[in-house]
Amino acid sequence: MITTPSLSDLLGVRHARVRDGLTADHLDALVVTHLPNVRYLSGFAGSAAIVVLDRHELVLITDGRYLTEVQETIAGICPAFRLVKVDPAYDATLIRVLKQGGYERVGFEGAHLPFNRYQTLSVALAEGPDGAHSRLVPTERLVEAVRLRKDEIERAALRQAGRLLDDAAVAILAALKPGQRERDIAADIDWRLKMGGFERTAFDTIVASGPNSALPHARPGKRVLRTGDLVVLDFGGVYDGYCVDLTRTACVGEPSSEVRRLYQAVRDAHAAALAAVRPGATASTVDAAARQTLVAYGLGEAFSHATGHGLGLEVHEEPRVGPARADVPGVPPAARDEPLIDGIVITVEPGAYVPGLGGVRIEDDVLVTGDGAELLTHVPLELLVVEHNER
Amino acid sequence: MITTPSLSDLLGVRHARVRDGLTADHLDALVVTHLPNVRYLSGFAGSAAIVVLDRHELVLITDGRYLTEVQETIAGICPAFRLVKVDPAYDATLIRVLKQGGYERVGFEGAHLPFNRYQTLSVALAEGPDGAHSRLVPTERLVEAVRLRKDEIERAALRQAGRLLDDAAVAILAALKPGQRERDIAADIDWRLKMGGFERTAFDTIVASGPNSALPHARPGKRVLRTGDLVVLDFGGVYDGYCVDLTRTACVGEPSSEVRRLYQAVRDAHAAALAAVRPGATASTVDAAARQTLVAYGLGEAFSHATGHGLGLEVHEEPRVGPARADVPGVPPAARDEPLIDGIVITVEPGAYVPGLGGVRIEDDVLVTGDGAELLTHVPLELLVVEHNER
Repeated sequence: MITTPSLSDLLGVRHARVRDGLTADHLDALVVTHLPNVRYLSGFAGSAAIVVLDRHELVLITDGRYLTEVQETIAGICPAFRLVKVDPAYDATLIRVLKQGGYERVGFEGAHLPFNRYQTLSVALAEGPDGAHSRLVPTERLVEAVRLRKDEIERAALRQAGRLLDDAAVAILAALKPGQRERDIAADIDWRLKMGGFERTAFDTIVASGPNSALPHARPGKRVLRTGDLVVLDFGGVYDGYCVDLTRTACVGEPSSEVRRLYQAVRDAHAAALAAVRPGATASTVDAAARQTLVAYGLGEAFSHATGHGLGLEVHEEPRVGPARADVPGVPPAARDEPLIDGIVITVEPGAYVPGLGGVRIEDDVLVTGDGAELLTHVPLELLVVEHNER
Repeated sequence: MITTPSLSDLLGVRHARVRDGLTADHLDALVVTHLPNVRYLSGFAGSAAIVVLDRHELVLITDGRYLTEVQETIAGICPAFRLVKVDPAYDATLIRVLKQGGYERVGFEGAHLPFNRYQTLSVALAEGPDGAHSRLVPTERLVEAVRLRKDEIERAALRQAGRLLDDAAVAILAALKPGQRERDIAADIDWRLKMGGFERTAFDTIVASGPNSALPHARPGKRVLRTGDLVVLDFGGVYDGYCVDLTRTACVGEPSSEVRRLYQAVRDAHAAALAAVRPGATASTVDAAARQTLVAYGLGEAFSHATGHGLGLEVHEEPRVGPARADVPGVPPAARDEPLIDGIVITVEPGAYVPGLGGVRIEDDVLVTGDGAELLTHVPLELLVVEHNER
């Protein structure tokens, strides 16, 4: 019999792993201000809170709006949990908690905490009672490094999110008609995602038709779909906090041979990248599989973005699935190219964008497993041809 | 004949006002990383860019996705404009631009720039060529202080956004029926906002029914509307970059006398607050007008949030319309209570939340004018009674 660990157990495991990072950095506590990290460590799903994780407990600081909810849910689940109500403001409360803790070295999330808040905290902590004082130490990726490998509850949420996205995508693609405006299609997609069980869309939906399809990040506008258009549809939803993301490309009316070739190139690149996803492979080898396929089609220049990105509590998280690159100032370590491990979830979304012809992108979500990969999304990969009944 | 200033003219005025702030702080240039501020100064509406504003020109740093769009639009409008392409990464490019500028004192947005980016920039700028070096100086509210007073183009966008929201709200309220789930109503609201001309929703729509209506920040769930429910609907849209925000409360079936009294109290508070909006009044007097009304009804404790907030390129911006409060560590200066001026746009949204009975909130958007206030939203204020055809 397989027993599934509870959220309480898994929160304990997450805390233990972050505490390993505290030990390695000789820290007594970590201040967590980045909300997805707050949620990961505590289960808190609201819009404002700070976590202080020390060697013994997790303190959640939040305001009056969330107290009842936290007491009724998280307080009974999160190990070694203590709730502190904001009074009179977040950072003032945080300072009080840190002073009471009597910590010497307090880590904070250097990639997230704004400079001014750092300075306010730093000054306040330097003047401790009885001459005691804490030192603030910037940390990097202490929680993100643990989040990389999704645990059982996260995998279950992502699998269910993938199933919901499949169902929504099939309905969305079936509803596509010439004569619609891009923004009306986008509104329809967002409605279907929410009616389909997602708590929100994961990002601003892209519907890019005709010449707009050649722009990878076009915003949906007033352009009306017409015969000959390629239409790139990129959308995603958030289920139980976890993000999934899918792209399919349609053609209005019968595709030309150039369009068929462009589509086949991207479909081959998508297949090659998926085949490269396995534990031990680096993210850059997944990117290279897609890129080399497109280069062989003479479309290397037309593939102007990375092959994918991590998915989880954020729609863009580690790892970056792109070409390996040398260290440059200003590129955060998230961009480093490390081997994929069991439990990482990424998108695979090669594309090719040809001015004058249009663009194609095909995107699925995939979980790295112990011996390969598990697709989270399953929507037909053939080029969808939308009938044109225009007169 | 009244001539309307062009966007180009107004961008020039915005730059001049921010340059006054540079002069006052003895800065040679300002690095703008907060995207709403980037948009305000340049018109750039994409998802990634940095502005460097010095005494003579505005440099926009952005990546390959946006180059064509910027060259075709902003480059011809923004005064003294220079476009720099990201290569190989944002902050590396920023460092190059700052070194080329040969600035001594470079301001940055301390409330927004994360500590790690500050540190990377700071180290890189300390090692200038030929012994030259720049000093990074934290600034506060240099752009936000200018954004407070909306100019003519911004007022026009906000007025149009208000009209679109009126039309959407009337349709949304007319569509309300018992038997619907909160989340389905929310999906319907979002669809109507987008079909009604908004580029996106301004925030996650709130539909809070029955006991949930007593929680000011409830998230829409699976609860089905039923007879006797109060239903708080809070939604908004973004038009041409500008945010508007509206709340109305409905009752399913005939309201009880307690519900009628609760509604009347909030409606009176809303009217009192609106009557208090005029140039020279402080935001805290607007809040006090609402709060005293609710206190007189014995509902002081039931009004657990501020009366409103500023609206513009962000859905929550300056000023905060709440009780005056003493300086506390960790409360940013945005919380200071300054007199309202011509051109400020705020929400007025008192509410009362009574466990066991339910909640009521009424919200409109208002522009402070030279001699009073101009409502941007006009939706009937009567308690909407939704017929119950349940069997």
